[in-house]
Amino acid sequence: MTQEECVFCAIVHRRTPAAVVFEDDLTMAFLDITAVTDGHTLVIPKRHAKDLWDIPEADAVAVMRTVHRMARRIRETLSPDGLTLFQANGAAGWQDVFHLHVHLVPRTDDDHLHRPWSATPVPLEALEPTRSRLVMPPAAAAP
Amino acid sequence: MTQEECVFCAIVHRRTPAAVVFEDDLTMAFLDITAVTDGHTLVIPKRHAKDLWDIPEADAVAVMRTVHRMARRIRETLSPDGLTLFQANGAAGWQDVFHLHVHLVPRTDDDHLHRPWSATPVPLEALEPTRSRLVMPPAAAAP
Repeated sequence: MTQEECVFCAIVHRRTPAAVVFEDDLTMAFLDITAVTDGHTLVIPKRHAKDLWDIPEADAVAVMRTVHRMARRIRETLSPDGLTLFQANGAAGWQDVFHLHVHLVPRTDDDHLHRPWSATPVPLEALEPTRSRLVMPPAAAAP
Repeated sequence: MTQEECVFCAIVHRRTPAAVVFEDDLTMAFLDITAVTDGHTLVIPKRHAKDLWDIPEADAVAVMRTVHRMARRIRETLSPDGLTLFQANGAAGWQDVFHLHVHLVPRTDDDHLHRPWSATPVPLEALEPTRSRLVMPPAAAAP
């Protein structure tokens, strides 16, 4: 998909109208047109990135700064009971628009969202094969 | 809840064993003991923060750097079909452990997770009352 065809790039470039609530040099926040709850907001990088594997770290960090800012704005304005973030990568991960976006979904005690899973604890030993594959050496924090 | 009673602080301080896969000065990543899929990873700040409203921006950014890094590590090691991030704030937002954590859930085409919602588009005009409440002035990017 080229950036010309991307519906979120079209919002960034103001070719498609959207309910924009914030932008800075690197990111934009707008209301999801398929709002599942009042205040359902998407935060995206302005530079096209397909998903979390495609986005440069600097843009991912900028997205998080805007998510952090919007979470506070949502609380002070809408006072939801809770807030759930979702971010989908790949069709198997439920991604529908292939321009990275973080959903901020304000929650109420009586909303109708479904828990995506139920899971029960396993013995720590059962995780060892995967742990040994994923483990990375400790790192110093970024400067 | 004090930090002494927090189960994730106990992992940070090595008082409780966990399948740790990465750490740096500000963050830690370990496998979720209630793994919903193979490689289900949690990324947390080392400094206790209850949720996205409680965490300082610098720690939220550090969490995102580690999420970004772990997403790549999961792809190169486990090659999932997709990856879904979840982050819950407040009991109404499905938070269970009150130390901020981001779920990285590797996905396969045939896994059994449930979509948390289905939603259909609304007219842009229907979003205007909420947009006008949430809107903030544009900002320059953080230095």
